[in-house]
Amino acid sequence: MMMSRSAMKLLSTATVRTIHGGGEFRRGFFALGARNLSSTVSAVREKPQTEPGSRSAAGHSSFEGGDKSVVSYWGVAPVKLTKEDGTEWKWSCFKPSEAYKADVSIDLGKHHVPRVWTEKVAYWGVKMLRLPTDIFFKRRFEMRAMMLETVAAVPGMVGGMLLHCKSLRRFEHSGGWIRVLLEEAENERMHLMTFMEVAKPRWYERALVFAVQGIFWNFYFVAYVISPKVAHRAVGYLEEEAIHSYNEFIKELDSGNIPNVPAPAIAIDYWRLAPDSTLRDVVMVVRADEAHHRDVNHYASDIHYQGLQLKEFPAPLGYH
Amino acid sequence: MMMSRSAMKLLSTATVRTIHGGGEFRRGFFALGARNLSSTVSAVREKPQTEPGSRSAAGHSSFEGGDKSVVSYWGVAPVKLTKEDGTEWKWSCFKPSEAYKADVSIDLGKHHVPRVWTEKVAYWGVKMLRLPTDIFFKRRFEMRAMMLETVAAVPGMVGGMLLHCKSLRRFEHSGGWIRVLLEEAENERMHLMTFMEVAKPRWYERALVFAVQGIFWNFYFVAYVISPKVAHRAVGYLEEEAIHSYNEFIKELDSGNIPNVPAPAIAIDYWRLAPDSTLRDVVMVVRADEAHHRDVNHYASDIHYQGLQLKEFPAPLGYH
Ligand SMILES: [Fe+2]
Ligand SMILES: [Fe+2]
Ligand SMILES: [Fe+2]
Ligand SMILES: [Fe+2]
Repeated sequence: MMMSRSAMKLLSTATVRTIHGGGEFRRGFFALGARNLSSTVSAVREKPQTEPGSRSAAGHSSFEGGDKSVVSYWGVAPVKLTKEDGTEWKWSCFKPSEAYKADVSIDLGKHHVPRVWTEKVAYWGVKMLRLPTDIFFKRRFEMRAMMLETVAAVPGMVGGMLLHCKSLRRFEHSGGWIRVLLEEAENERMHLMTFMEVAKPRWYERALVFAVQGIFWNFYFVAYVISPKVAHRAVGYLEEEAIHSYNEFIKELDSGNIPNVPAPAIAIDYWRLAPDSTLRDVVMVVRADEAHHRDVNHYASDIHYQGLQLKEFPAPLGYH
Repeated sequence: MMMSRSAMKLLSTATVRTIHGGGEFRRGFFALGARNLSSTVSAVREKPQTEPGSRSAAGHSSFEGGDKSVVSYWGVAPVKLTKEDGTEWKWSCFKPSEAYKADVSIDLGKHHVPRVWTEKVAYWGVKMLRLPTDIFFKRRFEMRAMMLETVAAVPGMVGGMLLHCKSLRRFEHSGGWIRVLLEEAENERMHLMTFMEVAKPRWYERALVFAVQGIFWNFYFVAYVISPKVAHRAVGYLEEEAIHSYNEFIKELDSGNIPNVPAPAIAIDYWRLAPDSTLRDVVMVVRADEAHHRDVNHYASDIHYQGLQLKEFPAPLGYH
């Protein structure tokens, strides 16, 4: 995956000399890392060192503004990945091994009937959240999707983080739940990365996302600390709402109210879709993901509601 | 990876009937999920529903105390994994595909000389942290390792989480850095899971870990928000200290002061070690991991010190 050490050193030294014209600079601020400078990164401007109080800043002024290769001081060479067909892998945010085929045969209609008051709080809490969303976005489902995904990517990260800390603090295994929850968060973020290719948010929508994230993050954090069972239940309901929202999205696509544009390239690579896939195909796989999240979170909640602990049950790793 | 839907349903229904003696119970609290009860989970006690205010709690009393299969309400069947040799995979916290061979040829001696005052703060800050550790643990390196790993697993999680939020908030790609930092956190946690097999902490050591985590988490969080460049630099130095600590650990093993016990099973599977590996082999691969973390964090810091952003550079995914 990496160049051989000596090959890198060779290339590096050569490149450094070319870039800096040799001498002082290399022995200055960049001395240590420059040995391992990687010539495979092709970007980008190199700014002078502007740290206040820097002793070497003065000596750097001659390099200001020049476009130069970026230095990988620490021998950390970027990985060149290829797709199965041998073409170059375009994404730095995920590896080909993380792409998957979504199981679209999953039951989209499942619903956990809230039975105890805490579950009812979770259920109606989520239902209430839909109200402002309905008013604000109406039937602009691509924007709703974006808003939804920025929110949906929070619980997995919060839950994963808290379980991570718990595992460290107590010297105990997690049963794989840290990873499952973090994977969920990453999956939701990929949904967002996909939808932002087809919907451009306006400035006030960005501001809304900003505000909602700040509030929801803290809210969910406290909720998860106090009662993970209710927190997971609420996420289960959130995912049920997400499925509903994507059902409506598909209706709008079928009726032609939202144009069924070609699928974004990132979606084709992430879900291993056919090259001629459309937005509708993307919404289908995203909806299947949400159904899987619903299952995982209701399952986690069920474990807690029985007074058991997540770590006692192997987490559904790779359940997509 | 999962049983077929119909097979599961069949098994499930059968199991549910057997467990609950049929009828009311299934239609009560567990009604929805029970269809998909998985018979492949072989654990565990099932507690009655004790939620205050529960309407169905009364009806459950007859099941109290019984040891029963656990219900996987949501069709989330645990994944049965096998090793390459066909034997059963023992770990629920990671998949065989996440195991790797550590590159022990990495340069252990690299050091980033602090040049500007912020780097010096990072450097001496970390050096200061070593002082109480030296006093407290002396040459009990297996305990030092545990302490170190509980701390070392924090920065990756904090950094990954903050970059995740940033990506969501700004609708922008992360360049893979979220994943790299979370992988680092998980890797550190695996170090801990390994060392806790060979060192049993005493109650006051556990208390110390608890306190240190609480303080360090918040401290690093604030540091990363204020100045990611200094935060990554400090982690780079922390990893340099970790390498030093493991160097000493190996000396103690070689001198016989710490017995070179067989490697824990989890370590053999995680780092793909030979079956007859020893603690010394484990410390070797852990030390190599630390050297990789050092590189990644100094690299990230270098990017920031140049006034650039992490997302502009593909993160070193899978750099072990
Ligand atoms: Fe989503
Ligand atoms: Fe979801
Ligand atoms: Fe470590
Ligand atoms: Fe480390």
